[in-house]
Amino acid sequence: MTQDLASPVSLTAVDAPDQPTPTPELEQLYRGFEQELLIPLWTEIGDLMPVHPRSRAVPHVWRWQNLLQLADQAGHLVPVGRGGERRAIALANPALGGKPYATPTLWAAIQYLMPGENAPEHRHTQHAFRFVVEGEGVWTVVGRDPVPMRRGDFLPQAGWNWHAHHNAADRPMAWIDGLDIPFQYNAESQFFEFGREAISDEERTTPERSRSQRLWGHPGLRPVSAPGATVGTPLLNYRWADTDAALTDQLELEAEGHPGTVEPGHAAVRYTNPTTGGDVLPTIRAELHRVRRGTETAPRREAGSSVYQVFDGSGTVTVGDSSWSVSRGDLFVVPSWQPLSVRSEAGSSDSDSGALDLFRFSDTPIFEALHLDRAAVDR
Amino acid sequence: MTQDLASPVSLTAVDAPDQPTPTPELEQLYRGFEQELLIPLWTEIGDLMPVHPRSRAVPHVWRWQNLLQLADQAGHLVPVGRGGERRAIALANPALGGKPYATPTLWAAIQYLMPGENAPEHRHTQHAFRFVVEGEGVWTVVGRDPVPMRRGDFLPQAGWNWHAHHNAADRPMAWIDGLDIPFQYNAESQFFEFGREAISDEERTTPERSRSQRLWGHPGLRPVSAPGATVGTPLLNYRWADTDAALTDQLELEAEGHPGTVEPGHAAVRYTNPTTGGDVLPTIRAELHRVRRGTETAPRREAGSSVYQVFDGSGTVTVGDSSWSVSRGDLFVVPSWQPLSVRSEAGSSDSDSGALDLFRFSDTPIFEALHLDRAAVDR
Amino acid sequence: MTQDLASPVSLTAVDAPDQPTPTPELEQLYRGFEQELLIPLWTEIGDLMPVHPRSRAVPHVWRWQNLLQLADQAGHLVPVGRGGERRAIALANPALGGKPYATPTLWAAIQYLMPGENAPEHRHTQHAFRFVVEGEGVWTVVGRDPVPMRRGDFLPQAGWNWHAHHNAADRPMAWIDGLDIPFQYNAESQFFEFGREAISDEERTTPERSRSQRLWGHPGLRPVSAPGATVGTPLLNYRWADTDAALTDQLELEAEGHPGTVEPGHAAVRYTNPTTGGDVLPTIRAELHRVRRGTETAPRREAGSSVYQVFDGSGTVTVGDSSWSVSRGDLFVVPSWQPLSVRSEAGSSDSDSGALDLFRFSDTPIFEALHLDRAAVDR
Amino acid sequence: MTQDLASPVSLTAVDAPDQPTPTPELEQLYRGFEQELLIPLWTEIGDLMPVHPRSRAVPHVWRWQNLLQLADQAGHLVPVGRGGERRAIALANPALGGKPYATPTLWAAIQYLMPGENAPEHRHTQHAFRFVVEGEGVWTVVGRDPVPMRRGDFLPQAGWNWHAHHNAADRPMAWIDGLDIPFQYNAESQFFEFGREAISDEERTTPERSRSQRLWGHPGLRPVSAPGATVGTPLLNYRWADTDAALTDQLELEAEGHPGTVEPGHAAVRYTNPTTGGDVLPTIRAELHRVRRGTETAPRREAGSSVYQVFDGSGTVTVGDSSWSVSRGDLFVVPSWQPLSVRSEAGSSDSDSGALDLFRFSDTPIFEALHLDRAAVDR
Repeated sequence: MTQDLASPVSLTAVDAPDQPTPTPELEQLYRGFEQELLIPLWTEIGDLMPVHPRSRAVPHVWRWQNLLQLADQAGHLVPVGRGGERRAIALANPALGGKPYATPTLWAAIQYLMPGENAPEHRHTQHAFRFVVEGEGVWTVVGRDPVPMRRGDFLPQAGWNWHAHHNAADRPMAWIDGLDIPFQYNAESQFFEFGREAISDEERTTPERSRSQRLWGHPGLRPVSAPGATVGTPLLNYRWADTDAALTDQLELEAEGHPGTVEPGHAAVRYTNPTTGGDVLPTIRAELHRVRRGTETAPRREAGSSVYQVFDGSGTVTVGDSSWSVSRGDLFVVPSWQPLSVRSEAGSSDSDSGALDLFRFSDTPIFEALHLDRAAVDR
Repeated sequence: MTQDLASPVSLTAVDAPDQPTPTPELEQLYRGFEQELLIPLWTEIGDLMPVHPRSRAVPHVWRWQNLLQLADQAGHLVPVGRGGERRAIALANPALGGKPYATPTLWAAIQYLMPGENAPEHRHTQHAFRFVVEGEGVWTVVGRDPVPMRRGDFLPQAGWNWHAHHNAADRPMAWIDGLDIPFQYNAESQFFEFGREAISDEERTTPERSRSQRLWGHPGLRPVSAPGATVGTPLLNYRWADTDAALTDQLELEAEGHPGTVEPGHAAVRYTNPTTGGDVLPTIRAELHRVRRGTETAPRREAGSSVYQVFDGSGTVTVGDSSWSVSRGDLFVVPSWQPLSVRSEAGSSDSDSGALDLFRFSDTPIFEALHLDRAAVDR
Repeated sequence: MTQDLASPVSLTAVDAPDQPTPTPELEQLYRGFEQELLIPLWTEIGDLMPVHPRSRAVPHVWRWQNLLQLADQAGHLVPVGRGGERRAIALANPALGGKPYATPTLWAAIQYLMPGENAPEHRHTQHAFRFVVEGEGVWTVVGRDPVPMRRGDFLPQAGWNWHAHHNAADRPMAWIDGLDIPFQYNAESQFFEFGREAISDEERTTPERSRSQRLWGHPGLRPVSAPGATVGTPLLNYRWADTDAALTDQLELEAEGHPGTVEPGHAAVRYTNPTTGGDVLPTIRAELHRVRRGTETAPRREAGSSVYQVFDGSGTVTVGDSSWSVSRGDLFVVPSWQPLSVRSEAGSSDSDSGALDLFRFSDTPIFEALHLDRAAVDR
Repeated sequence: MTQDLASPVSLTAVDAPDQPTPTPELEQLYRGFEQELLIPLWTEIGDLMPVHPRSRAVPHVWRWQNLLQLADQAGHLVPVGRGGERRAIALANPALGGKPYATPTLWAAIQYLMPGENAPEHRHTQHAFRFVVEGEGVWTVVGRDPVPMRRGDFLPQAGWNWHAHHNAADRPMAWIDGLDIPFQYNAESQFFEFGREAISDEERTTPERSRSQRLWGHPGLRPVSAPGATVGTPLLNYRWADTDAALTDQLELEAEGHPGTVEPGHAAVRYTNPTTGGDVLPTIRAELHRVRRGTETAPRREAGSSVYQVFDGSGTVTVGDSSWSVSRGDLFVVPSWQPLSVRSEAGSSDSDSGALDLFRFSDTPIFEALHLDRAAVDR
């Protein structure tokens, strides 16, 4: 639900409730609790039940050039194979205790594959996607369907699907992986299974379009042979050309005086499962936002956390008390209930080509499925 | 549900149950029933509760050339305007008592608009669509959004949306309208409201794409500004280029040995609501079927009725005991639980270009919503 | 949806649109239509697309004493057995062309079983229920579970369940049957199958509670062994004691100043499927209404039709332009969009015991499933 | 989904993948990762992506007598009031780092209220319930509706409902609280708001039944005045008499040869939301299990965690490698994917009165909403 502006969230904090006066008897009681593995609510409530989410995570930015350089070094030093499974290097939020978590629910990594390399097949209950900020040449083989990866492409992949990667090009390729690893780690829902060491020659082909795209990539149409709803999307790649066209259309509609954008100068599309119209994955939402040159978005907070990657353009991002200049490939996190505002760089011309394009993924589907979603715009 | 082949429908008919021996007392009883407006079950059960649907409708074909010729005559004799509302001429199934019903639930008509003509704005709870077998030049204005109509385009329009038509071309244009008029007539759910006599100049523009298409016509993407599910599809036109590409892809996948078609040589796509993945309208399903040259489909029966229009190619259609040669524009009906089989004409070459393309609409969503759907394939 | 009072339904009727001036050419055109089995919209639109539902059915009342007397005569003259299946005598709305339809979608009948008689087992896709206004002694065997029937009990039974009846008492018993026969007849969705001629001795037992009630008749509780949702309710009988208590509670809450009733003095409960919280049957809604002594309900119209039976008390019912005094057992129909108001008889005391209790069933679930539901209250 | 026995979960572990040979270059790479706040997958995958859930929590039992004694001491030493809010003392799983978490998602506590005491009103997004193993005299006021609490009663309360407690009796009362505090803490979805310091005199009444029970506590019936589905159940108390009757019925049905129990000798009911038929709370499932005297249940594992409290009887519980004798009031936890088996004590007679009754709550609704549910029975 979107927060009603007329009834703002109470800011009276539970914070530090008055505690009973320490006495020997109280001390003895607390020792009794400890012995019996008990903890009273009245000493913990401020942390456990805050008036609004106070994320353990902090806003942070990772620079793409640094990631790319370290990934390339790893490409020369660390082989890819069974056991380690993937040459993926994860963002570790500085406030999450040295865990490889971008946020309390989301995992984000740069993955890197050298020319000719293969990442072996496996499957897991964790939901995953890939997004390509630059380069091409890798095909991800999902359920034996080779899916091409190129700049701007988004590749969701629901849990428990077999998948492998192979680099068919003569140069390395990097992309980002997003998964719900921390969420499933906390919920303790994870299963994992090894697949084949090597994919077949047929799967090593490099088609221009995946079979999934040929079946499911036509707007408003579905094959009559597959009538049901699926948990994750059957469309395995969302091509940049489509995403770009949709964003361009929204800004043009706005220019003509029609609705469509999120707010003035701010277009956004959500990747959806064509069998339901809902999110591509049960636990992860993914979107592409375009902020027109010289535009600043209204600060918006949401229960739940997000990770963003700059796809194109440059600008300034403000998350809570932090503010950074960002450009292509930079990644940053927005912790739960922290306000985010984005300002795209004002260019010399007012053409849209200078827009700031941001890829975003978040844990919102979890919140919506459990009726815990809330959002507020600070105007 | 698809009929389990291991438990075929019982063919023991209730048909003509034995009746009690006529006596004066029985006669008197029956007169008593009549006086009190009562009818016993035991005399009616064979008709009311058959072992499987025995449609009151019969299979029938209407020839496009005849329809077109009569519609053109009407174009010169009958004006379009407030009151009559539309120059639409409906198929009347010969077994439905002179009612303008193609089947017990579906209404199908040819609509015809002369150059420069306008059909006035109105709205109604009946769900509707338009499909264009040939021609162009008319724009349907739905909720003030002008939607172009061209050969192969499908335009669904959920109930209670304002809509008008205007012919911007210098020649007449024909298309077919499909509605759930008989269903809503039987259910007694209909509401109707007049709109403006004339649409505005701005709505009289002739854009290449509707605004709905610009917002909703990108595969797997939706505007973040419109996150909910809608009863009818927000996408107001499904262009032929997309439909054709989807069908071509299915047959090519089949040729490569992959799944996707309904049965060998038979590709089919369903038009869907991108906010739900389900049917475009609550009461009407619409599909485009392509039967490869020289292919015959398996006889299939379904609870509920359909209307088909040949979009391209030619072939032979068998519905129950009827069989017809059909070609472009011809319309035919398939009554409930009557088997349908289609054979496309074998051409001189085996290229797909000679395929038989069939537009289909049916009342299946009603059956599915109420858990009354059944289908069986006679192999 | 409930009609917004600020935007009342337009009362401008399409009714009788102006017709084109008759000319020889027009006559010839109309003959052409006839030959080709075509019917123009402009001559039919007033009937097909009214501004609001104008039911073909009319309000009508059937007197219980007359029904009972005729049913008893039939009990002596017409045997029950295979073929005729049931000694059921249906209400035929006087405006529905001699069809055994209470309304365009609903069938309602009195069923009558003599001492020791058995109605043979069968099943059908039509959804059905039984309601008992007086008497006891019959058990309905649904899927081999004997279900007792007593005054005030409601017994829903979803389509395609095997069922039979047997009268274990030494006197005849009558009750009403409600089915969606006209709806399924129009939609052509019906399947029917004969079962066993005779039920087993074990099924001929006369338990106080059905097995379904023992599993599903505990408030807010369900067996862990049956976790899913079912199309029809698994609870096969709703006992009067529970219904009566729920209605009494609502009126007492109202008397204490709390919400709960539909309107002042008007309590109502809906029978629900405990696996979904929704209606007991996919096509039929059933409710029990209690109107406190001396209370008059606000006129309410609804898209869709209803049948009512007076369960207890007496009063005056007004449906559209008709008005009748009614008492125990009387049945009446409310056609689509006709306003209904009920006034219970003012008694000599103000105790609730003189309330007017009305059993109601309607086709509303069809309308809701297809988003065609509308209602309005005339205040 | 229930695990298919023919395809057991792979037991090949990722566990400790081979690591690249340490070299100075590798060391430098790892230092680079650290500086940039990056962590490679190949060193962490064994912990992050196990072949099946390996819970951080451990099985553990808490003895009711010890809890009760400490709670009573707290009753004399620690006041209840604004800030601390509740005299609740939480189970701290010994393997969860000193956090007051029974499992990674569930919070469980004993709450204690002295005669005449009041716990102030507040509300929070955390979903909560109360279950009473013994005693009576407290009313929980939810949205101004006083709800009685007595032995065997279950009181669910969906997030964001105002609530307070008051002890109207002349003796202390204890019960258990269950909440999804750890889950919402990890997801960072929590909101909290203080309400009134004191409830009104009217709310301080001690009715036999809550208003919610009077409206919603009738089997299979709902008020027509409240037709929609609600996120949490509108029924605020589930009385022991109903739960007991439902369990008794299941075991009697089993004894008569009919289905209904979970497995031989093991009856179980789930508390449900009458507006949906689903779980009472979006994140918490609650059930009451009855294991007949001398019966042992099959070991069952489930993705997700549970907390149990013995309501009556005694027996032996085995969770993974742990095994305990338990009796009334004892609480124990079952971590994710650990097998649980229960053996009730064989009594001197075979009457059901010696059954082992277990209250259970779990996080399963979270898993089902996100399609992450799995279960397996080890036979």
